[in-house]
Order: sequence, then C-alpha cells, then structure tokens
Amino acid sequence: MTLGLLPSWNDGAAKSAILDFVARVTNEGGPDYVRPAERIATFDNDGTLWCEQPFQVQVFFLIDRVKELAADDPSIKERQPFKAFIEHDHATLHSLGKQGLMELAFATHAGMSEDEFYTIARRWLASSTHPKFGRLFTHCTYRPQKDLLEYLRANGFKTFIVSGGGIDLIRAFAEEEYGIPREQVVGSSVKLRFELRDDRAELMKTTELNSFDDRDVKPANIGLHIGRRPILAFGNSDGDLAMLRYARTGPGPRLALLIHHDDAEREVAYDREFKLSPLVEALDTALEYGITIVSMKRDWKSVFDPTL
Amino acid sequence: MTLGLLPSWNDGAAKSAILDFVARVTNEGGPDYVRPAERIATFDNDGTLWCEQPFQVQVFFLIDRVKELAADDPSIKERQPFKAFIEHDHATLHSLGKQGLMELAFATHAGMSEDEFYTIARRWLASSTHPKFGRLFTHCTYRPQKDLLEYLRANGFKTFIVSGGGIDLIRAFAEEEYGIPREQVVGSSVKLRFELRDDRAELMKTTELNSFDDRDVKPANIGLHIGRRPILAFGNSDGDLAMLRYARTGPGPRLALLIHHDDAEREVAYDREFKLSPLVEALDTALEYGITIVSMKRDWKSVFDPTL
Repeated sequence: MTLGLLPSWNDGAAKSAILDFVARVTNEGGPDYVRPAERIATFDNDGTLWCEQPFQVQVFFLIDRVKELAADDPSIKERQPFKAFIEHDHATLHSLGKQGLMELAFATHAGMSEDEFYTIARRWLASSTHPKFGRLFTHCTYRPQKDLLEYLRANGFKTFIVSGGGIDLIRAFAEEEYGIPREQVVGSSVKLRFELRDDRAELMKTTELNSFDDRDVKPANIGLHIGRRPILAFGNSDGDLAMLRYARTGPGPRLALLIHHDDAEREVAYDREFKLSPLVEALDTALEYGITIVSMKRDWKSVFDPTL
Repeated sequence: MTLGLLPSWNDGAAKSAILDFVARVTNEGGPDYVRPAERIATFDNDGTLWCEQPFQVQVFFLIDRVKELAADDPSIKERQPFKAFIEHDHATLHSLGKQGLMELAFATHAGMSEDEFYTIARRWLASSTHPKFGRLFTHCTYRPQKDLLEYLRANGFKTFIVSGGGIDLIRAFAEEEYGIPREQVVGSSVKLRFELRDDRAELMKTTELNSFDDRDVKPANIGLHIGRRPILAFGNSDGDLAMLRYARTGPGPRLALLIHHDDAEREVAYDREFKLSPLVEALDTALEYGITIVSMKRDWKSVFDPTL
C-alpha cells in the first residue's frame, strides 16, 4: 500500500501515522473527510525543513552581512556584537538569543527595499555553503520533508511555512526548494514603509520589528495570514509547541508532528542543550498532547538529498 | 476573439485593456510573458467587489452588533456613538471616519475567539439584506468583477483581496462569493492572542489594532502577506491609490484599474462627496499614473447578478 509514497521515510509508526491520516481526510464519504480548502498544513522551517545547527542559516547570512559591512567600515570588527559574528564566537552569539539575533539581522537590512533585499538574498543563497556539510545551504533541506510536502500537495493540501526566521530570506528560496510560493510563507518581519523613489513605488525595510514569529505568536500569525486552523502541523522545538497544540486541538482529524534530532552520524543530535531552539517542554509533553515524535535516525531513510 | 470572455462587461476601452493585458502576460515566448507564480492580482473589496453605499457593509454588521448589545444593556441606546448606529445617523457615523468605524467594530468583537466570530459572521451574512437593494449583502457583489476574477484565475492568476475592511468578515464569505480562499484575503485586523481554554487552543480577538489596511498600508501589507508586487491591481478610491501605484510601477507589463461609480440608475453615482471612501486624487491623477478608469455605467453590462 505504501509503495512509492514518502520514499525517503522508513516504515514505522511516524510514516504510518502520516499515511493513515492523509488516507482518512481524503476519503470522500468517510467519517474523517476534510474538504480541500481546509487541508492546511503548516511547517516550521529551521530544524524542521532544513538544518539549524550550529546556527540557524539566517545567522550565517547575518555573519556574511556583517563581514560586508566591515569591509566598508573596519571599525565594526572591533565592536560587539559584530566582533562575535566575524569570529564565529558561539558563546556570545548564543547569549543574544533567537529574537536578539533576528533583530540584529533586521537592523543590517534596514533602508533597503524589498526588491534590493531579494537580490542580495538570492546571490548569497546561490553561493554560500554550510561549514560542516560543505553543501549549499539550500541543499541542507531535508529530503524526507520535501517528499512529505509533495505528498501532501498531491493530496489536495496547501502547505505553509510558519517560521521564526526572517520571512524575506525564506521567500527567496522556498518556491524552488520546497514548492511553497511566497504568499504561503509566514515568518518574522519588520514593518515595511511605502515610498516613491523617482516615481517608482517601493517597500522599504525599516528597523521596527513587526513580528517575532515564535511560540504563541505562531498560531496568532496563522490566524492573520491563513485565517484557518491547520489540520496538520510539523515542528521541532518548544517554539513550535503552541502551533502544534493549535493544530491538534481543533475538531475532526488532526496530526501534529515533532522531529527529534537524534542523528549524530548523518546530521546532529541535540534537544535540551541547543540554546537557540531547545526541545524540552514539547518533548516532555508530546505524549500527553497527542504529538507524534519523528526520530530523524529511525524514521528517515536519508537526511539530505543524496543526488544534490 | 472576445466572445464568451467577461460576459458582463461591455465592449470598450476597459474590457480591451484587460483582455489585451491577459493575452500578453500569458503568451509564452512573447516579450511580455509573466510566469504563473508572478501573476498576482489584488482587489480592494468595498466599492470594488461589492457595494459600499450608503455605508460599507461592515458598518451594517456593526449596526446590528450594537443592536444586539443594546438588547442586553438598553443604556447603550442613549450613549454615543452607539445611539448614532441605532438611529442610522449618517452625519455622526461619517464623522467617525473609516478607521474610527473599523476600530469601533473591532471593539464589539473583543474577547471572542476567531471561531466564535466566524459563527456570528456567517449567521449575519446568511440573513441580512441591503436596505436599498433588498438583496442579501453577499448578493450585492458585482457580477462583472466575479467574471473578471474567474477569468484571471483561468489564466493562471492568483487573486487576492486587499481591503480596509475587517479581514475576518471578508474571509467568512470570500470563498463562496468570489472563489478567493481565506489565506488570500488581506484586511484590517486586531492582534490575536493565543489562549488555552479547557485544553483547547483558541485565538482570541483583542482590542489592540494590528493594522488599518488603507492607503500606504495596503502595499505594505501586500509585502507582508504576499511578498510579491502584483502585476494587476483594482480599486475604487483614494485609499487604493498607493496599491495601484505599487502594482503599476514595477518592471514589465502592468495593469491598474479604478472603478468610477457613475451609475445612479443601477447602483449609485459618487466620487468626491463620499466621505468614507472618497475618489479625488486617484481620479485626478489616473491619466498621469497610467491607471485605467472603469465606468460602471458604460463598461458593465450588469452590476449585480440578475439570477440571484
């Protein structure tokens, strides 16, 4: 029955839970049928669709941005927190926290238009590689999750990203890598200012935070952007727990999934100790809240795409 | 060539501009070809997709909400601004302005969950009629615009609403009436708060304004929700001008359209004097900014759907 479906997933409880859920909600006339408009699936990005260790990819982007700024103004190299970026000083970077890092990243983009940012992001993504895996960051996306996204869409689902990362960087590659169009990406963001430059209207990135899309803000942003409770949600950290519970506690059939990074050999093993995206509460309460745990080591046949 | 396309539109400059534009952007290999992912079309709602006179539909919804509140607490009838709603006192209501009315509407929804609001909105929409036209409000949608939305989607466009009205009320009917799913509706909104009630996660509507989606905020919200500059935008008032210019001034083929309500016989004729949604600057600058004016009287074969 499962031949050919989710080819990068090993047979087991997690794969069965997914296949069973999709079969039920698409079975017209069955008790658990869900019409296509309501087949909303939301995915976290960092650690759920691509790797987030030793830093979220957006931090590597920020490091390179700081280096560019330092090329114009060498004094930056001696000033914190910029010094920490140039030196890959883990302790200092972790101490800034996820939101602190995001706000700093946003500060380095202020004054650009959305179109200018897009050009910079595309150039960086096309050429930058992960220090440990030696692959383009866009090739550090998880093969089993791409299979799952495709499988869900083939079954009438709309797939969304709901990420703590900056919305614009994700939008610059999500269409090509995940098949997720820009309007189906939700993330952290700054306020945009409408401006006319030489009679051309532009959206300028400001320094003012619009949304840090983590924890309780994730379901709130789902309400704003999607306006519908997802029937499937997938995360990997405590920052996703509110979204998982929002998806899980609606009426009718529901599936909430949580990746456990337990694969030191193929990727990396971490949970409680990873400060930027800890997995403590969600792991401890998964059983109680009806969240299905996915073990990277056990449930995934491959982690990255071996052909890339 | 145009047989069967846009059947509720009269032949003329506006219809030709639309048909010509769509033919160019879908002509693969042609100089103006636009790939489907970039075929984004944004529409204002009040006065563009359905009527907005004598008040925006959301004001009628608010009037009925105030009446419900007054049934529980009769003292409301004597207090302004509520008194003005119960008495349909145009002067007082207009003096509150578009944002003032919207914020008042939001105040009457605070403390409800998104799911509760949806139930109330659906019930109201299913039974409430327009005082002048005697039709359900949902049947005060414009037949030619529904033709246009369908025609655009049949040509690979994604159609969005970008409205000053409350996002949730629009989402409660846009799918059925316009074929526009909830996640493709952008509008004014309050901040939502994630809350657990008896172990069920809910999004609660707060009193804090998140966004009043008018004027310069429209393109900024397009940036947030869609992340892509529309190639076609359609509005009817000065509140839409920033969105029209944002769409019109990007690279490649562009179409910006503006309805002029000049049809006293079939709907109503107004522009400068309608305080809640005035058409002054957009009308005066349309030629200069390359905006195509659509005359309701001249360009539309019918206004409402004659079969409803």
